[in-house]
Amino acid sequence: MERSQEVKKDLLRRISKVEGQIRGIHRMVEEDRYCVDVLVQISAARAGLQKVALAILGGHTRGCVANAIRSEQGEEYIEELINELDKFIK
Amino acid sequence: MERSQEVKKDLLRRISKVEGQIRGIHRMVEEDRYCVDVLVQISAARAGLQKVALAILGGHTRGCVANAIRSEQGEEYIEELINELDKFIK
Amino acid sequence: MERSQEVKKDLLRRISKVEGQIRGIHRMVEEDRYCVDVLVQISAARAGLQKVALAILGGHTRGCVANAIRSEQGEEYIEELINELDKFIK
Amino acid sequence: MERSQEVKKDLLRRISKVEGQIRGIHRMVEEDRYCVDVLVQISAARAGLQKVALAILGGHTRGCVANAIRSEQGEEYIEELINELDKFIK
Repeated sequence: MERSQEVKKDLLRRISKVEGQIRGIHRMVEEDRYCVDVLVQISAARAGLQKVALAILGGHTRGCVANAIRSEQGEEYIEELINELDKFIK
Repeated sequence: MERSQEVKKDLLRRISKVEGQIRGIHRMVEEDRYCVDVLVQISAARAGLQKVALAILGGHTRGCVANAIRSEQGEEYIEELINELDKFIK
Repeated sequence: MERSQEVKKDLLRRISKVEGQIRGIHRMVEEDRYCVDVLVQISAARAGLQKVALAILGGHTRGCVANAIRSEQGEEYIEELINELDKFIK
Repeated sequence: MERSQEVKKDLLRRISKVEGQIRGIHRMVEEDRYCVDVLVQISAARAGLQKVALAILGGHTRGCVANAIRSEQGEEYIEELINELDKFIK
């Protein structure tokens, strides 16, 4: 599916960006940079990671969960989804 | 629906519990209680509120979202759901 | 202390506002309002509660923690503060 | 400072672990692994990142903030700290 390839590429690009941010944080700590500047970067990486999680959640709901619901097997998938969300919105 | 009534009663019970916790926090601040003890209570109320949010999210996905998906109108509901989640998992 | 009284009044006002929001959420669930509208309100109450937590954290750091640091007994208070934060930034 | 070197090494080790987790997430998405498994990994990376943030917050409070408080210049640092926390406990 063309569209799915696009979504995947976008996702991988976002993940690569977070990887770069984490490498930046590593370097900042090595160079003894000011703590609050490091925290600002952690905050940015964290936000990037959340966007990745949201994009995956959206894709999962549109794909697997929706398909399961259509074939009347949604309950198990919804249960799993809500359990997973529990870890994210604490 | 009997089951839905049960879910609703459980939800209202949880919300009432959070209300009680917030009243407790109000009293603790009035009585100048130790800050960290107040934070512990805020943390508990916050966790209670998240459980309420999760329960509502679960019910919404099982109900409205699943129905919309079954009648091939799921996209709009999923979009709305993911947008709402964005505020919760920041 | 005049200033402290002001801070306390402001804090109590914020907590009362969250109390009102939780009562509103209770009513919305009772009236079977649309789930996403309830989630929006939970999100608002949650943000209000976080502001209360931050204000208490700030006051605690300016007060107890700063005093403990000045009398070279800060370590224990800082430890306690960081442990408490652990619950909030998960 | 010997102790500070140890803290820094521990911090860098934690950050490297998060880097490895993010690379793992990248690979999982490339290999089209099951969404919920990816979310579990994101959740783990996120928790690792929070631990790094907490460790930095603790070090900053014990170091810069405590020093500033001792020389009666704490207010500005505490303000900055609380502002930073605001982004983390949303």
